[in-house]
Amino acid sequence: MSNVLAINAGSSSLKFQLIKMPEETVLAKGLVERIGLHEAIFEMKAQEKEEKFVGDIPNHEEAVKKLLEGLKKSGVITSLDEINAVGHRIVHGGEKFSDSVLITEQVIQGIEEISELAPLHNPAHLTGIHAFRHILPEVPMVAVFDTAFHQTMPPSSYLYSLPYNYYEDYGIRKYGFHGTSHKYVSQRAAELLGVPLENLRLISCHLGNGSSIAAIQGGESLDTSMGFTPLAGLTMGTRSGDIDPALIPYIMEKTGKSASEVVHVLNKESGMLALSGFSSDLRDIEQKADEDPRAKLALDVFAERIHKYLGSYAAKMSGVDAIIFTAGVGENSVLIREKVLRGLEFMGVYWDPTLNNTRGKEQFVNYPHSPVKVIIIPTNEEVMIARDTVRLTESI
Amino acid sequence: MSNVLAINAGSSSLKFQLIKMPEETVLAKGLVERIGLHEAIFEMKAQEKEEKFVGDIPNHEEAVKKLLEGLKKSGVITSLDEINAVGHRIVHGGEKFSDSVLITEQVIQGIEEISELAPLHNPAHLTGIHAFRHILPEVPMVAVFDTAFHQTMPPSSYLYSLPYNYYEDYGIRKYGFHGTSHKYVSQRAAELLGVPLENLRLISCHLGNGSSIAAIQGGESLDTSMGFTPLAGLTMGTRSGDIDPALIPYIMEKTGKSASEVVHVLNKESGMLALSGFSSDLRDIEQKADEDPRAKLALDVFAERIHKYLGSYAAKMSGVDAIIFTAGVGENSVLIREKVLRGLEFMGVYWDPTLNNTRGKEQFVNYPHSPVKVIIIPTNEEVMIARDTVRLTESI
Repeated sequence: MSNVLAINAGSSSLKFQLIKMPEETVLAKGLVERIGLHEAIFEMKAQEKEEKFVGDIPNHEEAVKKLLEGLKKSGVITSLDEINAVGHRIVHGGEKFSDSVLITEQVIQGIEEISELAPLHNPAHLTGIHAFRHILPEVPMVAVFDTAFHQTMPPSSYLYSLPYNYYEDYGIRKYGFHGTSHKYVSQRAAELLGVPLENLRLISCHLGNGSSIAAIQGGESLDTSMGFTPLAGLTMGTRSGDIDPALIPYIMEKTGKSASEVVHVLNKESGMLALSGFSSDLRDIEQKADEDPRAKLALDVFAERIHKYLGSYAAKMSGVDAIIFTAGVGENSVLIREKVLRGLEFMGVYWDPTLNNTRGKEQFVNYPHSPVKVIIIPTNEEVMIARDTVRLTESI
Repeated sequence: MSNVLAINAGSSSLKFQLIKMPEETVLAKGLVERIGLHEAIFEMKAQEKEEKFVGDIPNHEEAVKKLLEGLKKSGVITSLDEINAVGHRIVHGGEKFSDSVLITEQVIQGIEEISELAPLHNPAHLTGIHAFRHILPEVPMVAVFDTAFHQTMPPSSYLYSLPYNYYEDYGIRKYGFHGTSHKYVSQRAAELLGVPLENLRLISCHLGNGSSIAAIQGGESLDTSMGFTPLAGLTMGTRSGDIDPALIPYIMEKTGKSASEVVHVLNKESGMLALSGFSSDLRDIEQKADEDPRAKLALDVFAERIHKYLGSYAAKMSGVDAIIFTAGVGENSVLIREKVLRGLEFMGVYWDPTLNNTRGKEQFVNYPHSPVKVIIIPTNEEVMIARDTVRLTESI
């Protein structure tokens, strides 16, 4: 038996789950928010009990102490010795990390070096790593990268049609994100289909506030919609996805904004929020779709881009065996799945509206005779982190 | 009988064809280059005779005089009265022009107003229009817009996921280009298939130095790969096509370039030229594909993006009846068509390598039993301009 802490550290937050392996049972989960700010919040749920604390938590080390105390207090562990390993989610692993890795000084240095590619995320993750290393110096830790799964992409997928030295000198290429989720659901799809992953061509649609699609062939990412950053690809909650790049200087000229300010608009004030005019949350938008033409437009644009990626990635793999829907919208929006799946009979997708009327649970949506299967699979990035953490620490 | 001059005026050039309608016979064709520069060049071919002049041609009016003289001298016309109408190619018609139109003062003003969207092209076209109006004041003239054919796109195709006022206030949307070519080949495809255009779902691949793809349903453009400008979409000779828009400030920071300078790189120093490292010309790159890995990479990236669009647009139209290849590369590159078409059996595309071994002429490439037809159709924008010119002037 071993207990793994799966950690996602932000600049002022710390999300965690304590997972018992190999059973994959969540013993406790929680969140510390507003670290270093006035009135930090600590919330935890363990053994059906909820705990909440509001007060000062000056830094990540104090946050770690708070959560470890919380775990002891709730009774899920009696001593810190019962935490056998810690897995850290890291957004960007660049080209250096094509798999999860045991954290060493060298790995920390590597994550630091890649920080330029994810200036908002990697330094925050490192703060989390340092805090845990200080407080649990003997516990092995593992880094699990959002980008690692996509490192199998061939150059024809990951290279932009830009001056080649931009790739060599500045690391400009498609990295892709949500890899932990795409990997988890693809493995789960193989189990559900009863077919080895090596023999499957899958399209995984991770649709949430951030959204990406991956073409997964033989268990390996072959292509994905996000790019150098998570801005690229699909229309998202507040992100534009792909636009004509020539628009950036044009918008700068029209609005007097700098290039970075324009990209901030593309990240934070675009997407479903901009199209609907009132919300980035698909649930709000769906509610108004009948009365508000802009809400309907937002849904149409969102669904149509996904729909087009399905055709595109089917072409890339010369066909597809199963389409997977996951994450908040993918698992819960009956309407979006319906709009995305409509009219794909030409490529062998036959789906049952009754089965599609499902929210938040594993479900085959296709008719039994459909050559292409369609599966809703709730994602579980924390379990994936725990699995990789066990895999990389069990030999220690 | 009527003779139509089809004109494409650039800032220092004037391309022309004199076409006899309705027979669509080319009586003469030629080009004036380096207008206003030292040693302008005038070349013309008529009735098997070639004519060439090198010397000063100070402005577009002189260029027009030169070409009219040339036409008389060659004997294809005996008097200027035999030129019954002039059709002008105009790159950008914005949202104002959804069809070709008889040129009036108001139309000229409209083209002027749209110049902001095509600052390199529309003013040059206007110079050409003014020159012809001055020299042939009684001859009716028609404007034929590259964007007009795509004005049938629905908002879910043409809107970016950007703040809505960018569309309302600045005209930011997808316009699409190469419309005259996409329209011509789609009409010709319907003739060759013997099926009314209204009943067809076509994907038209206009592949040249600039490349774009269009999804054409019932004769109307439903979606296209170029965007606000011709930079978007596919990898082209020197253009990057789509990239992660967040790359622009990153490249600015790394290279010290301004946003406009970066977009200049994306337009002029990217695409096949950047990937191969030595040429933007597909013929050069194909020749080196066996020995040079970068040449092979360039071909792979170019073909793969087109291949993915085929899946994407098939999804958009719930299937496709025919795929069309046109323009320099589309008509002539056996290898690119092969790479693009490979692995599309899942969507009903079965093609014959022997038939594909064709260059520059109309040819069905599919096996007879293939549900999806594949057709090479040499494009002819000049004839399309002449047809529209006759249509809009014959009632005068």
